[in-house]
Amino acid sequence: MEPRPAASGPCPGDSRAAEAAAAASLLNPGRAPSVAAVLPAGGSGERMGVPTPKQFCPVLERPLISYTLQALERVFWIEDIVVAVTGENMEAMKGIIQKYKHQRISLVEAGVTRHRSIFNGLRALAEDQPNSKLSKPEVVIIHDAVRPFVEEDVLLKVVTAAKEHGAAGAVRPLVSTVISPSADGRLDHSLERARHRASEMPQAFLFDVIYEAYQQCSDYDLEFGTECLQLALKYGHVNARLVEGSPDLWKVTYKRDLYAAESIIKGEYAQKNVSTANVRERISQHICIIMDTKEDETHVGHHLEEILKNELNVMSSDFEETQRLLNMLEESDLSILYPVVVISVYFLDYKSVPFDQKVENLMQIREYAKEVRKRNILLCGLLIYYPQDEQKLQASLREGATIITTLIKERNSGLVGQLLIA
Amino acid sequence: MEPRPAASGPCPGDSRAAEAAAAASLLNPGRAPSVAAVLPAGGSGERMGVPTPKQFCPVLERPLISYTLQALERVFWIEDIVVAVTGENMEAMKGIIQKYKHQRISLVEAGVTRHRSIFNGLRALAEDQPNSKLSKPEVVIIHDAVRPFVEEDVLLKVVTAAKEHGAAGAVRPLVSTVISPSADGRLDHSLERARHRASEMPQAFLFDVIYEAYQQCSDYDLEFGTECLQLALKYGHVNARLVEGSPDLWKVTYKRDLYAAESIIKGEYAQKNVSTANVRERISQHICIIMDTKEDETHVGHHLEEILKNELNVMSSDFEETQRLLNMLEESDLSILYPVVVISVYFLDYKSVPFDQKVENLMQIREYAKEVRKRNILLCGLLIYYPQDEQKLQASLREGATIITTLIKERNSGLVGQLLIA
Repeated sequence: MEPRPAASGPCPGDSRAAEAAAAASLLNPGRAPSVAAVLPAGGSGERMGVPTPKQFCPVLERPLISYTLQALERVFWIEDIVVAVTGENMEAMKGIIQKYKHQRISLVEAGVTRHRSIFNGLRALAEDQPNSKLSKPEVVIIHDAVRPFVEEDVLLKVVTAAKEHGAAGAVRPLVSTVISPSADGRLDHSLERARHRASEMPQAFLFDVIYEAYQQCSDYDLEFGTECLQLALKYGHVNARLVEGSPDLWKVTYKRDLYAAESIIKGEYAQKNVSTANVRERISQHICIIMDTKEDETHVGHHLEEILKNELNVMSSDFEETQRLLNMLEESDLSILYPVVVISVYFLDYKSVPFDQKVENLMQIREYAKEVRKRNILLCGLLIYYPQDEQKLQASLREGATIITTLIKERNSGLVGQLLIA
Repeated sequence: MEPRPAASGPCPGDSRAAEAAAAASLLNPGRAPSVAAVLPAGGSGERMGVPTPKQFCPVLERPLISYTLQALERVFWIEDIVVAVTGENMEAMKGIIQKYKHQRISLVEAGVTRHRSIFNGLRALAEDQPNSKLSKPEVVIIHDAVRPFVEEDVLLKVVTAAKEHGAAGAVRPLVSTVISPSADGRLDHSLERARHRASEMPQAFLFDVIYEAYQQCSDYDLEFGTECLQLALKYGHVNARLVEGSPDLWKVTYKRDLYAAESIIKGEYAQKNVSTANVRERISQHICIIMDTKEDETHVGHHLEEILKNELNVMSSDFEETQRLLNMLEESDLSILYPVVVISVYFLDYKSVPFDQKVENLMQIREYAKEVRKRNILLCGLLIYYPQDEQKLQASLREGATIITTLIKERNSGLVGQLLIA
């Protein structure tokens, strides 16, 4: 068991404090319940067809579970997050917590099944455990390590409903019709799709309801059961409240889902979806385009800014400022969680400077990019080699904008240090 | 209704003819049944959150439905493929068939629900339609336009089982537990996951069984039903044979699924998975790396070939040959279905040639790349600028290999014509 870090809660100077207070006031009348989360992460990922359990698979070079932990620890009113991992992954998990600076995490040993892992997590939260710095919460959230896009909104809904009804869980419409096979592998009957739901995560419970259910339930339940809501019903006689969740709650199950997750994290997901718009916003703040514009080239730089300004952070600066900004980025923790893409844009009027001389100077970017790469900063150069002709200039700028968009969209480290030419 | 193209079947000279004969012999004793497929493609894609119906969304710049059609028409024993599309998408669909040279396709108007679209497709296949060049098959496959990774193997299994049992469908284990809510939005009961299956596609039926079922079924079935196997059971008293399908059969439902599909098509999917290994193989054949090696640089080129040879097609040639190859590619139809990535690799010993002079020559690649881009060929240049020092040379070669792998993996048109430097 890891020692619990210092007290959590909103910092007084936190700009999110007002937001947080508003969230808390949505919880039921009376005092807000104390809330902890249990995250079973002992799965072997056998459906994935890869040796690494899916919760530890990298997405943009960072393990999937780190995204899920970040999603939970963003929510200040979750006081403790108990993660159940197998003994063999314990050290790796500790490394992830340290590297990505996760807070309020306690580790417990996973059981051989999901239910046994959750039970271990609940046991760690129960007051009667010796040497534990955790305290028993009023409400406990159960979530999956492989559902990284959970938003505060749905967490609040299940917690509020659990406080009122004893148990609550997120559900989604069925994508496929569910059928019941006969013993000889033939269709016995099909279920009416509209009358059923897929049970997803997160779920929340009054702690006493779910802990007692786990204490009473049979070995068969612990070995073969798949549904916590069912345990609360069977042993606690609580009919859980069902909360409609967003499509983002889906579980990363197959290898293809890792690519889907990456696409969401890269921020390409439909902006319509509010929860993912947050991801998009967070990521696009991590992109800078720095332009080295001399006085007579200012108008050209301005054109490019116009093309890009709706999507990206663009700064005008000279090369010394570029280096200062990179130093600043390196010193900050900005690039710990996501790779930061920095594109240094140069303008070159091909009548005024010999091409080769300029290019040779700009090649220095390669060495510099190698250095900052170690800190998760992806630096590329873009040379906009523009003719005097206004029409051709516009074409060069559009081409430059396409290259910038491509580099940001792909966010791939394979091309760092390249000097691209538009 | 589109006119049916000339007779299908294996060409005598087709290298896949033996394979095909083997496949056919797996069909039940006696003559092989005549088989057609119906593909409902009238969906609006409302779950996608985007205005384009998902079957028409581009994946690597080609509409999703074109991949599905390709997967079906690869199977020679499917004689006709009837696609149901809405009136407003009819012209777009005709354009897709023409552009990607699809064969054996007939178009019918979609109905307002999936069942009505399938019924329209079946009606077109039934013999009593005037002016139809289609003929009634013994077995009909029903598939979804948004399941592009269907393999011959599972098609054969459902057709064989349908011939024997009257109906058959692919199923998959449930990913989430299915629950039944009460009227007030609370858990009524949960279903035992192991005793249920998700009903997927493809399905196959004796034509008479499913056509009669559609003729007898109620308006309620046609409006609200979701399951063809259920219609065969209810009206044809046929308990469909259930066939375990591969994970690749999943339905592209949400926007994130498009990225998952793209990742599979790009060939990054686990090689373990046989069906996708085929995709991988198909794609990697469409990549060429051409090296312009002078005599004294041959050993350097050879090193790079060694690094890459397990994954890619590498050819050694001079620049004239590069151009001949590109002309050949342009004239062939290779690049119609998938973008072809061509990377022209140059070696430059930085003591022997002035850097800037060489670079300026190589910049010609940009204009040439713009030309071949129109034919779906993505051309990039890679300059391996190597020092005499053997250790540094190895580092340059490894960097070059990383860049090549990145360009192929991303397969992105935003960087065509760039001269990258390792």
